[in-house]
Amino acid sequence: MIGKIHKQMSHDSWLFSKMATPEYTPFVFLLLLFQSSVWGFPVCQTPQESPTCGYKPGMLNVHLVPHTHDDVGWLKTVDQYFYGDRNDIQHAGVQYILDSVVDQLLKNPDRRFIYVETAFFYRWWKQQTDDMQNTVKQLVNEGRLEFVNGGWCMSDEATTHYSAVIDQMTMGLRFLNDTFGHCGRPRVAWHIDPFGHAREHASMFAQMGYDGFFFGRLDYQDRNRRMVAREQEMLWRASESLTPPMADLFTGILPNGYNPPEGFCWDQSCDDPPIRDDPDLEDYNVDDVVTRFLHIAHGQALVYKTNHIIMTMGSDFQYENANLWYKNLDKLIRYVNQMQSNGSEVNVLYSTPSCYLQELHRANLTWPLKGDDFFPYADSAHDFWTGYFTSRPALKRYERISNSYLQTCKQLEVLGGPISRKGPFGAGDSETLKKAMAVAQHHDAVSGTEKQHVANDYARKLANGWAHCQVLVSNTLSSLSGSSAPRVYCEHLNISVCPLTETSKKFSVNVYNPLARPVSWPVRLPVNGTNFYWSVLLTLSLPFSLSLSISLYPSLSLSISLYPSLSLSISLYPSLSLSITPSYSLYPSIIISPSQSFSPQPSSLLSLCASIVTLRDFLSSLFCVCLSRYNASDGNNSESIQMSGAYIFRPNTSTPFIISKTAKIETLQEVRQWFSPWVSQVVRLYTDSRALELEWTVGPVPIGDDLGKEVISRLDSSINSSGVFYTDSNGREVLQRRKDYRPTWNLRQSEPIAGNYYPINSRAYIKDDKDQLTVVTDRSQGGGSIQDGSLEIMLHRRLLYDDVRGVGEPLNETSDIYPEGLVVRGRHLLSLSPPATAADTHRPLAQEVVLQPLITFTDGELHPSTRLEFSGLQAVLPPAVHLLTVSQWDQDTVLLRLEHQYQASESKEHSQPVTVNLQKLFSTLDVLGVSEMNLSANQWKDEMTRLDWKAESGTHHTGVTNQLSAYSAL
Amino acid sequence: MIGKIHKQMSHDSWLFSKMATPEYTPFVFLLLLFQSSVWGFPVCQTPQESPTCGYKPGMLNVHLVPHTHDDVGWLKTVDQYFYGDRNDIQHAGVQYILDSVVDQLLKNPDRRFIYVETAFFYRWWKQQTDDMQNTVKQLVNEGRLEFVNGGWCMSDEATTHYSAVIDQMTMGLRFLNDTFGHCGRPRVAWHIDPFGHAREHASMFAQMGYDGFFFGRLDYQDRNRRMVAREQEMLWRASESLTPPMADLFTGILPNGYNPPEGFCWDQSCDDPPIRDDPDLEDYNVDDVVTRFLHIAHGQALVYKTNHIIMTMGSDFQYENANLWYKNLDKLIRYVNQMQSNGSEVNVLYSTPSCYLQELHRANLTWPLKGDDFFPYADSAHDFWTGYFTSRPALKRYERISNSYLQTCKQLEVLGGPISRKGPFGAGDSETLKKAMAVAQHHDAVSGTEKQHVANDYARKLANGWAHCQVLVSNTLSSLSGSSAPRVYCEHLNISVCPLTETSKKFSVNVYNPLARPVSWPVRLPVNGTNFYWSVLLTLSLPFSLSLSISLYPSLSLSISLYPSLSLSISLYPSLSLSITPSYSLYPSIIISPSQSFSPQPSSLLSLCASIVTLRDFLSSLFCVCLSRYNASDGNNSESIQMSGAYIFRPNTSTPFIISKTAKIETLQEVRQWFSPWVSQVVRLYTDSRALELEWTVGPVPIGDDLGKEVISRLDSSINSSGVFYTDSNGREVLQRRKDYRPTWNLRQSEPIAGNYYPINSRAYIKDDKDQLTVVTDRSQGGGSIQDGSLEIMLHRRLLYDDVRGVGEPLNETSDIYPEGLVVRGRHLLSLSPPATAADTHRPLAQEVVLQPLITFTDGELHPSTRLEFSGLQAVLPPAVHLLTVSQWDQDTVLLRLEHQYQASESKEHSQPVTVNLQKLFSTLDVLGVSEMNLSANQWKDEMTRLDWKAESGTHHTGVTNQLSAYSAL
Repeated sequence: MIGKIHKQMSHDSWLFSKMATPEYTPFVFLLLLFQSSVWGFPVCQTPQESPTCGYKPGMLNVHLVPHTHDDVGWLKTVDQYFYGDRNDIQHAGVQYILDSVVDQLLKNPDRRFIYVETAFFYRWWKQQTDDMQNTVKQLVNEGRLEFVNGGWCMSDEATTHYSAVIDQMTMGLRFLNDTFGHCGRPRVAWHIDPFGHAREHASMFAQMGYDGFFFGRLDYQDRNRRMVAREQEMLWRASESLTPPMADLFTGILPNGYNPPEGFCWDQSCDDPPIRDDPDLEDYNVDDVVTRFLHIAHGQALVYKTNHIIMTMGSDFQYENANLWYKNLDKLIRYVNQMQSNGSEVNVLYSTPSCYLQELHRANLTWPLKGDDFFPYADSAHDFWTGYFTSRPALKRYERISNSYLQTCKQLEVLGGPISRKGPFGAGDSETLKKAMAVAQHHDAVSGTEKQHVANDYARKLANGWAHCQVLVSNTLSSLSGSSAPRVYCEHLNISVCPLTETSKKFSVNVYNPLARPVSWPVRLPVNGTNFYWSVLLTLSLPFSLSLSISLYPSLSLSISLYPSLSLSISLYPSLSLSITPSYSLYPSIIISPSQSFSPQPSSLLSLCASIVTLRDFLSSLFCVCLSRYNASDGNNSESIQMSGAYIFRPNTSTPFIISKTAKIETLQEVRQWFSPWVSQVVRLYTDSRALELEWTVGPVPIGDDLGKEVISRLDSSINSSGVFYTDSNGREVLQRRKDYRPTWNLRQSEPIAGNYYPINSRAYIKDDKDQLTVVTDRSQGGGSIQDGSLEIMLHRRLLYDDVRGVGEPLNETSDIYPEGLVVRGRHLLSLSPPATAADTHRPLAQEVVLQPLITFTDGELHPSTRLEFSGLQAVLPPAVHLLTVSQWDQDTVLLRLEHQYQASESKEHSQPVTVNLQKLFSTLDVLGVSEMNLSANQWKDEMTRLDWKAESGTHHTGVTNQLSAYSAL
Repeated sequence: MIGKIHKQMSHDSWLFSKMATPEYTPFVFLLLLFQSSVWGFPVCQTPQESPTCGYKPGMLNVHLVPHTHDDVGWLKTVDQYFYGDRNDIQHAGVQYILDSVVDQLLKNPDRRFIYVETAFFYRWWKQQTDDMQNTVKQLVNEGRLEFVNGGWCMSDEATTHYSAVIDQMTMGLRFLNDTFGHCGRPRVAWHIDPFGHAREHASMFAQMGYDGFFFGRLDYQDRNRRMVAREQEMLWRASESLTPPMADLFTGILPNGYNPPEGFCWDQSCDDPPIRDDPDLEDYNVDDVVTRFLHIAHGQALVYKTNHIIMTMGSDFQYENANLWYKNLDKLIRYVNQMQSNGSEVNVLYSTPSCYLQELHRANLTWPLKGDDFFPYADSAHDFWTGYFTSRPALKRYERISNSYLQTCKQLEVLGGPISRKGPFGAGDSETLKKAMAVAQHHDAVSGTEKQHVANDYARKLANGWAHCQVLVSNTLSSLSGSSAPRVYCEHLNISVCPLTETSKKFSVNVYNPLARPVSWPVRLPVNGTNFYWSVLLTLSLPFSLSLSISLYPSLSLSISLYPSLSLSISLYPSLSLSITPSYSLYPSIIISPSQSFSPQPSSLLSLCASIVTLRDFLSSLFCVCLSRYNASDGNNSESIQMSGAYIFRPNTSTPFIISKTAKIETLQEVRQWFSPWVSQVVRLYTDSRALELEWTVGPVPIGDDLGKEVISRLDSSINSSGVFYTDSNGREVLQRRKDYRPTWNLRQSEPIAGNYYPINSRAYIKDDKDQLTVVTDRSQGGGSIQDGSLEIMLHRRLLYDDVRGVGEPLNETSDIYPEGLVVRGRHLLSLSPPATAADTHRPLAQEVVLQPLITFTDGELHPSTRLEFSGLQAVLPPAVHLLTVSQWDQDTVLLRLEHQYQASESKEHSQPVTVNLQKLFSTLDVLGVSEMNLSANQWKDEMTRLDWKAESGTHHTGVTNQLSAYSAL
């Protein structure tokens, strides 16, 4: 069977089956996933099948949408939120919300509710009785309980990588599908809280089959213009590569963020007056309530296009006692609609986003086109939510390598078969890490905007997922290699800690490459220097690291015995000294003891770089690689009181402080820069590598001067960038950015630094006609180009004030185990290429950073019968094709996603259609049949029909447009 | 028919019927009230009929009692609490509580709930559908929803008068009886929150048929002793006059006030960890919860006598989202009882107070006897809740005269018949004032411990009740007098304001005496002085008052025409000058403009009194009537930080500050004392009166020195009182008090003033062998005898700090209409008699103050046909008999309560049985039959069977005991 990947930057999900016997079987569809669609659809009373949702033609129809917004962790951990634990921090208990909403829905068939976060719904569902489950199914089938969005969480959009987002959406939507069949399939994407919106997210939602998308937060200037222009609802053309309408997504901006209109919040957490309609009691207020409501409804109708408007009746963790809401909403609807007999033309109804969306569609209007994204988000002149692009850099990195580990784990689960889950090392699974990763995508998780104890919980969950995967991986490796020697996982190699390699006299290294093509990967292993590197040991008397480059061939290269042939393997990169103390940080990080007699020497990176021959390619364009810092605004010294905090970046000056004008430099085979005792960097260039590695180490950021600090790496070059730079969207397509400019409105810039920061998920670049300087990051970070030829990327933030956006803690990142503050280490990979071929470098380079090899160790001599090599693929995939997902779906089925990883026109060689032969892809799996699905694997591709929308002409703004003044300022 | 009142101090309710025709009909029972008991009892699954309530013999049975405590006004008004309005002040919405509890009871038949405050339940009930009402009836019949206490509110015990308490209990219990029949009749009295407990309340509860009584608050020393002695459950012998067990009441002290044990509060308002029993989620805590619970249960069992213990699982306004509570309680019961299979001997069950009470009864033990009361209440050494005995003196007075007005209104409703409710002046009713008065009995209403805006609401409700009654009264008077001339009600006579009498040239006064015997009553009417008292006018140029004494004969003396015979009527008390400005206060009160050149003159009351011949009787015993003040503790200058506040009295010294050592004195026919511009007093003695009247006026209390002040009146005499004094209990029986002493434990006195204060509802006295000095008050106040021969009574309090007991406001009593602070005026009536005959004076005197005549006016000439006299009674009642209640019950039935108002042995003449002929009692009503009922009129007297309890011998402590050291200190 041949699957065609016919579009650039498309990615599809494939289900296929493998058999234990290597017998050829003709292609069959596997229908296990969609039993209900085969055994008879229930009639869902969802908008598509129940045409009116109760609106009245000719009237202003007000769609009341009862909803709760349940953060999958924020001020409390996800499980604390579920149970309602730690209500002293924040009153919130999701178990009770779902209990209560179901009860209240049963009391009045008109009532509706939407639920969003499957991570919570799943927890609740498995605690319910059969009776309750049947009741809920009935509510879903009748459209009274509707799922929207439906991912495991509501992803962050600025700091997530598309592969992890697709995974978490798939997990949530699969649960809904397995549980409720097609009536449970969300039709609407609903990102009401994330702090800015990525175009790649819209593209993914479109490819997942959503009919529309609603959100709450956008730049206040953008919103003001859209209100006047009635452009709060639009068609988002979310890809420059995919043919419309493949990535077109109808997108609506909600009227009050996601809150109810002022004065109409009837949750237990609110203080608005209830409807007091008993004339025998004091303060009868029905007339007042109706008057206020009509006033708000008419006002809202002025800034939207149709005679339908939506009101979100709910907010964070609301509906724990749904009776309060519904009792008053029942009354509101009754009393407002009673006015119709007096000539009122307002009709209020219980509704849902899909109901509302359907009425918008029925209006058959044309909608303005949107081509760029919604970054950065500012809620007023000095309040740019660009700090969280970098907040908690250690967690951001841990999330990113956990994704790498999860993909590896899932691949090895498929390759290992049932023994992977129950084998010689016990019971392992990938589910635990899948769930931990899904939770980590939440917009208060990897975003870094949660409380410290919650960040710790996300990390703990990931670590637990690793442990479960490690058993699985050990089982599989044992099965594939024929050796049941215990596997050792050294998770602290980034700080040169690995007890086995440091103490063992003989050990083996096992490397698994999750990419479907060969890579070179530098590995540094700490070993007990007395045996091998006595000269180094003599100078440092400490554990040290060594670099080892292993060429990886598809896909498994097993058990390179390091001893006695170690010298062979490490010949390329002799040992480099680095003074290391044991790590006390929770996340991968490093604590560096500065040399005792630190004194900067008068040498710049420029001259430094000149001393390394292999770095010479950079010299013509790079003036400086500087580590600098901003001091954070404490709200006292400027025209507004906004402080820098977990969400918000606001430096107190627009010029970064140079941490040291000169760095102390050591030159070995690498260049070491010490900017200060707490900021250092190592520059390396590996043979044959197309990229320069900058390994930065920052922390503990000193705060003795009572100033928060935000540390950046700034790359200054001679590239004539003309105020333009480029950043990726969720690690996939790249958008053009322009300093002090937004494509869709006439920006009044009020923050010269923070207002020019954008999310960098995997790469950023500047270019001119001749050169493109690309930085590939190892995690999500924020950055921008403040000066022509310059790229700056924020590395670490330590802040002393809360920025008053709810988290209620300064982003100080201290704990008992790192009381001095967190030290973070990471890598930037710099490549310099002609623009026309730059993508040919940075595309594979970024994928190598995202999916890095898994290295395991075994102690002692390998058994002679050990199988040393294995590859799961019959051959490498074409360079344009990325093996995005290989994952066991159920007993006989595997989910496969192949992705064309090049954007349209970015590579002459690779931005082309490509064909893959699925039948000949895998070495150990026989494909019995393949079913093509939508991106989230909850719908057959050929059953995927989405609402069609008409775009206005002339309103398509993309990141590459030059329409400088498309709209006059408001 | 002859009704016998055979016991002193007993009072019973009678139902009788009147017919329009004056025909004699033999006695029949009227069964209208108890239809269900005639037409077939439902089988109530209440403890009496469902014997076990689920306990397990031989185990420690823990009775979990889910409950909510719903203040009928406190931080919010009663209607705000009902609706959940003003949740910004306090989150509380009773409508939702009842919604939620009913829902949750239906989910599990084991679950139980008790409800207490009928004021709220009534509001909720009338908004329910028939279906819901039937559902609730079923829950009540099955014992799953049980009413306890059941009054309209949970009365205050320190500042209420028994007549108003009986009324409010009757109203609440009647609603339950009418609605639910006998299954709805509460078996248990439940005063979990009032701040100290009155013996008269216990007596009333016994006479209302309650089987037992539970409360939460008592002196911390008392509690500590009782815990060690296992005397937290006892038999309260609540009357020295009634033959046991008529006023015996089993009384239990709850283990945690009325809160759940620490760590087990699962309401939405609490932060305790929920039971996290999903092992897949974080923080599984079942083992921890079970261990902690068993520890608490075993600890509690050590301080109670039986193998049954009770835990109150709820608190203020809890169960708004009952799911939180029940879901966790279900789990608690399941997991704790699961331990029985591992040998645990603890059995947990959903229960109710009556269930628990029945198990205590079944234990067949003897219980310690209690004879005194539970005042004063201290929760720690410097925290005596004796301030609220006086807090908000204006509201306390308004409540008291509203009671008088309500009794009059109810009497006139009976005497007027249907025309009273719909007559020439429109629709009137007594219901509105009944409900307002019932609400005002709440322990945060007349107690003065509510927020200012809530106090305003109570007053507004009472004023609204007056307005409804005024229409009723006008209708009845019109009917009885044959004149439909408009009636004018001058409600501000206490501040000498009555626009009619001040401007009219001719008007009539109509006086109605609600007592069943003749009284003399001084009335002062402001008239336009130019016509009659030009000499006074010349000196003051302001309105003024005149005194008028009218002899009232049974029971109605109608329409004394004041003009032209005014001089006749006022001959006894010629005009007295008083400089008055219009009142701006909400409550009856007065603002006095001090004379411009105020300068105290050197004369004491002693010499003053000597100048008035008719006061001479007092001279031998009275040294001084001084108005003094305490400065309130601000928490800064003493060993604990407790401040004086609405609840708590804590002076910052133990010696009151003399406001002025000398008072400026004017002597007319009365004596006027000006202690300071804001403290004054008028002393009057009326001809033939047995009492001296002290009319005090206090306020606005100055606070310019940043000190709160608590103003007292101190009466110093030569009476050899030996540290003993006497105060009444709720206006009825009198208890002996002894300085620095409690009858039931060895007191360690820590507050020499506040710790010796007791509630004075209607009177206090000191005595020796020769003399008894009795003070009758016109409202509830606090006071004590700090020095031998001295009685001090607190008049007014103005405080600058909150006392941290929840009200969250200083008791400052300012508002827009009296921004300078409240001025309060009141009266003390002093009588001096030989102790043996003192009661013969103070009993009728106090009743005259409680039920004062209603004075109405008509403008102009009376129509000649106007009937001038009417009496509802055929003859006066015997002096020992008080006509407590005459009230229309339903169309053909009247509720009658006759009361023996003398305590045993206090009067040689009156402390005797007395017989009343009901048949010949009323002048216009024919008695067709009489049914004797319990005090609260919710049970036939002959069906009233209460649980019998055995008392230990030798533990009966009353107020008159001399057992100085009955218990050693703990």
